[in-house]
Amino acid sequence: MRKQVLTILIACASVAAMAQTSQPAVIEDFKPSTFNQPQQEYPMVNSQGYARFKIVAPAADSVRVSLGLGGKGGTKLQKTEDGSWMATTDGPMDEGFHYYNVRIDGGKFNDPGTLNFYGSTRWESGIEIPAHDRDFYALKNVPHGHVHQVLFPSPSTSTSRRAFVYTPPGYEKSKDKYPVLYLQHGWGEDETAWSNQGHANLIMDNLIAEGKIKPFIIVMTYGMTNDVKPGGIRNFKIEPFQTVLIDELIPYVDDNFRTVKNKDGRAMAGLSMGGFETKTITLNKPDVFSYYGLLSGGTYAPADISDKSKVKMIFLSCGSKERPDGVRKAAEELKAAGFNAVSYVSEGTAHEFQTWRRSLYQMAPLLFK
Amino acid sequence: MRKQVLTILIACASVAAMAQTSQPAVIEDFKPSTFNQPQQEYPMVNSQGYARFKIVAPAADSVRVSLGLGGKGGTKLQKTEDGSWMATTDGPMDEGFHYYNVRIDGGKFNDPGTLNFYGSTRWESGIEIPAHDRDFYALKNVPHGHVHQVLFPSPSTSTSRRAFVYTPPGYEKSKDKYPVLYLQHGWGEDETAWSNQGHANLIMDNLIAEGKIKPFIIVMTYGMTNDVKPGGIRNFKIEPFQTVLIDELIPYVDDNFRTVKNKDGRAMAGLSMGGFETKTITLNKPDVFSYYGLLSGGTYAPADISDKSKVKMIFLSCGSKERPDGVRKAAEELKAAGFNAVSYVSEGTAHEFQTWRRSLYQMAPLLFK
Repeated sequence: MRKQVLTILIACASVAAMAQTSQPAVIEDFKPSTFNQPQQEYPMVNSQGYARFKIVAPAADSVRVSLGLGGKGGTKLQKTEDGSWMATTDGPMDEGFHYYNVRIDGGKFNDPGTLNFYGSTRWESGIEIPAHDRDFYALKNVPHGHVHQVLFPSPSTSTSRRAFVYTPPGYEKSKDKYPVLYLQHGWGEDETAWSNQGHANLIMDNLIAEGKIKPFIIVMTYGMTNDVKPGGIRNFKIEPFQTVLIDELIPYVDDNFRTVKNKDGRAMAGLSMGGFETKTITLNKPDVFSYYGLLSGGTYAPADISDKSKVKMIFLSCGSKERPDGVRKAAEELKAAGFNAVSYVSEGTAHEFQTWRRSLYQMAPLLFK
Repeated sequence: MRKQVLTILIACASVAAMAQTSQPAVIEDFKPSTFNQPQQEYPMVNSQGYARFKIVAPAADSVRVSLGLGGKGGTKLQKTEDGSWMATTDGPMDEGFHYYNVRIDGGKFNDPGTLNFYGSTRWESGIEIPAHDRDFYALKNVPHGHVHQVLFPSPSTSTSRRAFVYTPPGYEKSKDKYPVLYLQHGWGEDETAWSNQGHANLIMDNLIAEGKIKPFIIVMTYGMTNDVKPGGIRNFKIEPFQTVLIDELIPYVDDNFRTVKNKDGRAMAGLSMGGFETKTITLNKPDVFSYYGLLSGGTYAPADISDKSKVKMIFLSCGSKERPDGVRKAAEELKAAGFNAVSYVSEGTAHEFQTWRRSLYQMAPLLFK
């Protein structure tokens, strides 16, 4: 299991963030990234996916952003006449969301132009390269669900722990009971990732408005219960998080929300390390969840699952720049063994959030059928 | 009205963040600030209220934080042998929360050690000086309410706008209708401030757990509807925000939450510029709210209010380092004129969040009696 996590992380690190190596001429139609802070012009992105950065630090000797150059060392900014530092990436970037940071005279900081997103066990800068399919997670004039911040009691960790709970539009007025997807972030991220970077709430709002899914609840909590030290994943043990999830969070959610309180009403899915957690916990606790999703987070083999009748659906996905053949092959083997398994490959994306936004969009209609 | 806002802001800027001028010897019991990012040791604070900063930027020529030195220019960090920059403030700071930023070679950045908080129209670093009375906003093992992020339709601004709605513990299981406090942030802040910096949800959870208040809902939204440009407050007009609040947000809340849908079940309060908004809107719309609160945000005169019978309670507060006499005198004049008015002065604090945390704690038991 530990070896699998390491493999995922290494695959992640080696995937280049750049889309192409032979570069077209840069079109000068740059606009502020949609994740900029209010009134901030930079960073900007153009219609080809180039990013342009501007950092004000008049007396600095060296300014560099961690994006660009195939992920190797990032982009060096050049000093301009007004004392700011500027550069454009050396090629178009993959569609969707990218984390980055800014090196100023050897220190690691964030770009004051952007919002921050928790990744790599720190709040990082983020930039959005507009995707051709961005409509499915756009903020539209449709009914919106709520994202509740809840603080649930956790005797096993002697704390009140935080989770975010998406309830679909109409939940407050309805008397229905809703099924629940427990949805995990990746290594170095936290329970804010699926809403902030992933737009999970907007993906759901739009799917519901279009009548493509029956409404369900999503619960997102912190999965690195016992291990937040950078590089410490070698020692990751599932038990502390499994206890929080199974013995503390699920009972809290079932007690405080109108849920379907049985395994047919529960799914678990996760991205990257959250996929590893999903695989481990669904196999350890076969009577808790019926729907399993691994998003860039490994695969199940038929032999992993002792009682086929307990699994209603298995969803496996990744980006086309990861290992799409592995995901496709695993789904085929599961299907051949009689499982309801589905694979999805996000075209042109790597181990990043655009892969996982699309994966959630593809997976949601398959849940709770 | 505009002059009043300017006066508040100038008062704010001129109040020193430092508590004393003759300084005691520094006690070496520094601990990480409670608002640090996970695993981050710095910034640290000691039992006297000194703050110590450490910023890694080996090749920088100059590093400075905006706190200390009586608010005038901040604290200059000194380079250490390992390439990091360090300094301790030249005196103890006021109890509670302070915004700050880091100047590196002339550019304005954030401290990578801390969480970010929206203030001064940017996401800033934040530090917490432990207050002697911090127990009232501590995260305790008591039932916790939820903070819902809602996206409500706003035809007047052609957007879906964000608000946060605190519902008290037990709201989900109850069938009761709850009164609602509409609670506004200050200039340069946004709808995240009262939860993140203010701990409004924890203040409520604790008051409810101790039986000191009857549970109510709090709604927090963005109040600078038409004006987010720094320095642009001279041109601030109340109408766009008033329309969003009165014609869009209140109907949404009354439709989606179990509220008392009349003026006896509504309060409005705000800090600093949010107090100016509260005063203006409560006077413009005397049939919408019954309870008014201005926290470091001006005062009402008896002559401001045409129909005394419509006002159930007026709460006026500020820090002892602001203008406590003005607040006390205004409350006395209101009482003499037959109003139910209460003043509160936060001892030893200025135009900062510790004043407003304490003000909410004092005001909450007086609402909806």
